[in-house]
Amino acid sequence: MRKTRLDTARIRAARRVIDPVFLDSPLYRCEALEPALGCAVSIKLETANPVRSFKARGTEVVASLLADSDARAVVCASAGNLGQALAWSGRGRGLDVTVVASRFATAAKLDRIRALEARLELVDGDHELARERAAALARYEGIRLLEDSLDIETCEGAATIGLELVDTAPSFDTVLIALGGGALATGVGHVVKALAPGVEVICVQPLGAPAMTHSWRQRRVVTTDSTETIADGVAGRCPVPAALTDLLLVADDAVLVQEASIITGMRMFLDHAGLVVEPSAALGVAAILEDRDRFAGRHIVTIVCGSNVDVDAYHHWVGAASL
Amino acid sequence: MRKTRLDTARIRAARRVIDPVFLDSPLYRCEALEPALGCAVSIKLETANPVRSFKARGTEVVASLLADSDARAVVCASAGNLGQALAWSGRGRGLDVTVVASRFATAAKLDRIRALEARLELVDGDHELARERAAALARYEGIRLLEDSLDIETCEGAATIGLELVDTAPSFDTVLIALGGGALATGVGHVVKALAPGVEVICVQPLGAPAMTHSWRQRRVVTTDSTETIADGVAGRCPVPAALTDLLLVADDAVLVQEASIITGMRMFLDHAGLVVEPSAALGVAAILEDRDRFAGRHIVTIVCGSNVDVDAYHHWVGAASL
Repeated sequence: MRKTRLDTARIRAARRVIDPVFLDSPLYRCEALEPALGCAVSIKLETANPVRSFKARGTEVVASLLADSDARAVVCASAGNLGQALAWSGRGRGLDVTVVASRFATAAKLDRIRALEARLELVDGDHELARERAAALARYEGIRLLEDSLDIETCEGAATIGLELVDTAPSFDTVLIALGGGALATGVGHVVKALAPGVEVICVQPLGAPAMTHSWRQRRVVTTDSTETIADGVAGRCPVPAALTDLLLVADDAVLVQEASIITGMRMFLDHAGLVVEPSAALGVAAILEDRDRFAGRHIVTIVCGSNVDVDAYHHWVGAASL
Repeated sequence: MRKTRLDTARIRAARRVIDPVFLDSPLYRCEALEPALGCAVSIKLETANPVRSFKARGTEVVASLLADSDARAVVCASAGNLGQALAWSGRGRGLDVTVVASRFATAAKLDRIRALEARLELVDGDHELARERAAALARYEGIRLLEDSLDIETCEGAATIGLELVDTAPSFDTVLIALGGGALATGVGHVVKALAPGVEVICVQPLGAPAMTHSWRQRRVVTTDSTETIADGVAGRCPVPAALTDLLLVADDAVLVQEASIITGMRMFLDHAGLVVEPSAALGVAAILEDRDRFAGRHIVTIVCGSNVDVDAYHHWVGAASL
């Protein structure tokens, strides 16, 4: 394949600087989900760690590099999971971490960022405004700006999931990956295409936050004016060009799903797998629900990328039909 | 220490016959639980696997031995988790598995046993009647009876958790272990006392199913007439003498907790850790809640031993105060 920005040897090296608590996450068949989905389903569970998402794989790489340099401070924009992960990784290495987030971000994520002793600055707008503010802060303070999906460490960290899939999983046909900025999809996609090229890489995004999917389909950056989805972790409007270029090289498809399917997916994880997942983590199951014929009889791996939810919202989403 | 029935070298050997999907389960600090508990809390998470409990560590050992022998069939009594695990382990090795359970057992557990192609026989009584019926079936059919906590493989399998705690965890002060028949407590307790003797081993049982705790305290088998607890996984009335003998050698304490504390613990796992746990898995947190002073400032490891719940009951337990 044409070359992405990623390099498999560098990804293997990245594993060595990531705290083992984030590595070798559970990967297992979840048969209880299968009757309703009509295919074999394996879960790669990225929630059973101190920050309840995969994001620390990348922030461990970044923080490790910063700690080895003269840098003592770093700032990022985040919908919440990246910020929480950077706060965790930075705290352990004596870094000053600043996180800029939308004031509409998931409260539980913001609470955890504060609890992890990061400086949290809220902006009165969406994630794209938080990105602008973080960039301005970095310039003004002369500190490192960590940009998700643009900075290669975020992609390399996520890509270590791909190594674990390829090394551990029995043969599987398709991996379903939540698509936001693209770090997870390009990282995992790169490794899968490099080491298990027969496996199909399908990205899944909400219909209400389709910028990257539209960009992938049109092979050029397409922005949107707004987002409307409960999947806060993937709700960007302005794709990173370099991430799109990589995504075009590794993704076999990018699909959009409805909010109702995301909610059904979250409820299925709770009812049949005993797993709390945040909306972004249910995108893969939502994609299967919306196109059972496409996946019938195949063996799907879906990456359960996070579990940080506001409890009240979560009860509201999953409660009704279960009670 | 005086010798239990367990042997650390045999436990290490047991690891080699257990499907890796059940090994090296997540172990991580859960800081979000800590403000409410007043101590450092690490979780050993035994729910992120195909049977959602630790029991397959033991059934893998048993099924592996049976598959290497002439035996083609095995029967066990189970509150649900052992049966599910034996069904999983037996299916992969071509064994005929029969599970005897109370008709009052958790429906989700019974459903999974059936889904895993085991023969399920229900008795119109509690778990002790199921044990009698399983023993009768084994005699009548001339097949292997697997007895939880009595058969050493069930203890050795559980003990592999202890190896992972001792090998992986940063120093911790206390391990809190759900106490039912005793396999988990004696297995983990044996390894901890052998390899990390400074660590305190505390067993936790519901006030409504206190037989083993009373037995431990009185140093003789004490039975009870009934049980009254939502913690179905530990609700036995007739302790196994050999398990008690071992428990007396490895447990520093055995405590009883109230149902309300178990429910609060389950709710805390959901609200603060994003984890669905079954009642037995919340016993450790319940013990901290009931005696915060005892654990203040210490580093506690609690084994989250299962997540198999009936969804409606679970919503009933955790829903009220969260909404």
